[in-house]
Amino acid sequence: MKKNFQVVGIGNAMVDILATEDDLFLERYGVEKGIMQLIDMDRAVSLYSHIGPAKEISGGSAANTIAGIAHFGGRTAYVGKVKDDQLGAIFAHDLRAQGAVYETQMAPHDAADETGRCIVVVTPDGERSMNTYLGVTEFLSPDDIDPVQMADAEWIYLEGYRFDGPASHEAFAKAIKACKGAGGKVSLTLSDPFCVERHRDAFREVIRKDVDLLFCNRAEMLSMYQTDDFDAALKMAASEVEIVACTDAENGAHILQGKKRWHVLATPVKVVDATGAGDMFAGGFLWALVNGYDLETCGNVGCVSAAEIISHIGARPETNLRILCEKQGAL
Amino acid sequence: MKKNFQVVGIGNAMVDILATEDDLFLERYGVEKGIMQLIDMDRAVSLYSHIGPAKEISGGSAANTIAGIAHFGGRTAYVGKVKDDQLGAIFAHDLRAQGAVYETQMAPHDAADETGRCIVVVTPDGERSMNTYLGVTEFLSPDDIDPVQMADAEWIYLEGYRFDGPASHEAFAKAIKACKGAGGKVSLTLSDPFCVERHRDAFREVIRKDVDLLFCNRAEMLSMYQTDDFDAALKMAASEVEIVACTDAENGAHILQGKKRWHVLATPVKVVDATGAGDMFAGGFLWALVNGYDLETCGNVGCVSAAEIISHIGARPETNLRILCEKQGAL
Repeated sequence: MKKNFQVVGIGNAMVDILATEDDLFLERYGVEKGIMQLIDMDRAVSLYSHIGPAKEISGGSAANTIAGIAHFGGRTAYVGKVKDDQLGAIFAHDLRAQGAVYETQMAPHDAADETGRCIVVVTPDGERSMNTYLGVTEFLSPDDIDPVQMADAEWIYLEGYRFDGPASHEAFAKAIKACKGAGGKVSLTLSDPFCVERHRDAFREVIRKDVDLLFCNRAEMLSMYQTDDFDAALKMAASEVEIVACTDAENGAHILQGKKRWHVLATPVKVVDATGAGDMFAGGFLWALVNGYDLETCGNVGCVSAAEIISHIGARPETNLRILCEKQGAL
Repeated sequence: MKKNFQVVGIGNAMVDILATEDDLFLERYGVEKGIMQLIDMDRAVSLYSHIGPAKEISGGSAANTIAGIAHFGGRTAYVGKVKDDQLGAIFAHDLRAQGAVYETQMAPHDAADETGRCIVVVTPDGERSMNTYLGVTEFLSPDDIDPVQMADAEWIYLEGYRFDGPASHEAFAKAIKACKGAGGKVSLTLSDPFCVERHRDAFREVIRKDVDLLFCNRAEMLSMYQTDDFDAALKMAASEVEIVACTDAENGAHILQGKKRWHVLATPVKVVDATGAGDMFAGGFLWALVNGYDLETCGNVGCVSAAEIISHIGARPETNLRILCEKQGAL
């Protein structure tokens, strides 16, 4: 029987606050370049007071991926927690307006924490340095997982960042059980090399036991398998999961399935804002996969999608990705 | 004695919610193309539920102008009301981060209305159709006007849209009195032809009595003087105020001072989103004016500034306008 959802994503629900600053700013305010760092509300308020004029655009890693798949026309749903506040309304609107189902119960209006936000400092080289106040999204728990929805998904897509919350481990376990129990498959993104540092064992366990498709980039892959040998790490990963899709910045991406292997090239583009590149690679890849394309095509669609996202500020698509993929010969 | 502020603006404090839709959308949801229409909260909620994924960027007509002058390095302040909510915090941040002084008391967290927002529907031709929920900004009153600040301004800049509120008429009167009493000057923007329809008499009175510099576009000018003869209207306006700066879309702008007259050409640009074109024309013009440039230069700086704004989504500058003006020979 056909399932209602092609991909259901679970992750940190976030609104991005994007501002452009130079490298001196990062140094001055102690922002680590190019990675995601968790911050508390005080730090969020302080950092926000120092950045220049900003734009607010819905974000959240897995939410970006799901928005991307929905943008392509895929049948998607998303699970992640916002509060019943203005940023929460913006997040929910943008995801639903893209065509994704989003029904996670909002934290009430008088909850102590607010909707999560990510202060993204974009430097002139296009690199982004992310400062994440999790807010209520930290409290994603098994209660937020509807097993019926998970059983109705061909794939679930788990965001590594959400491993930062213990209750969310249980939420992931519940989602995996319901999805796999109904014949669905599990994909995971490692999210960030420092996230891998924090949760290597937990990642390793879920990779070996449950993951069918692993998304990561080169740094995450090396951190995951604690080696400098990229090729060895890729092979190790391929021995543990059915499909590995590992991005490698301007070198494109490596796709592995058992002994088979493809190297897809990155789409040349001027990087304006790298925010969401990996998310949209996964979005394009997954959309192509659930629509029956071969893995090399999946990789190419992922690369074109990622290139579109980094050509402008913000992590949600601004061009019709399907037409773009056709134009660029990926479809 | 040198005044602390070169320009103090007063207007509707707004966050813009920008989404791209086709003309069919406007028809389907009864949105009048190319103008500003006032909507209530129910309509705002309904319209928001129908638009696609959006971006949130601080707006407000006079606030855009003040942000523009501050961006150029001018000494500015702004008066306009937001609520102590997340959108209010975004509005305040973006203005202050641009270097403008903004101290208007926020409506309290438990106020019945919210921070004003403008749902801007951008069509493929770059035209914008604005749907404004005023929220707390409607309640700008004389209490919000600090006469010391107004007396400390070389120019005040009044937003015609704010004539929609009776208490704001009094606020404007108070600001004008304090500013003029200390030797300052008054500029006014007519904002919108339908705004002119609503407040022609009030505009006429303030123009004749107090305005030194009038900003408007062709349609507003014709509506103001109830004529089809653009040239006659320009001359009429020039007989009533010291300086007239009237934009005329792709035909550039007409500047009049007494019997003298200049026609400055528009900067050629692909229109992505017309939101804020007039606001930034006024911003560039005023910045040049308070820095002692001749009126023709003021007009050219205005045109280059407007062209930058309409080349991207959102009404706040994304490029260094001063460098842009130098490159394009306006400065």
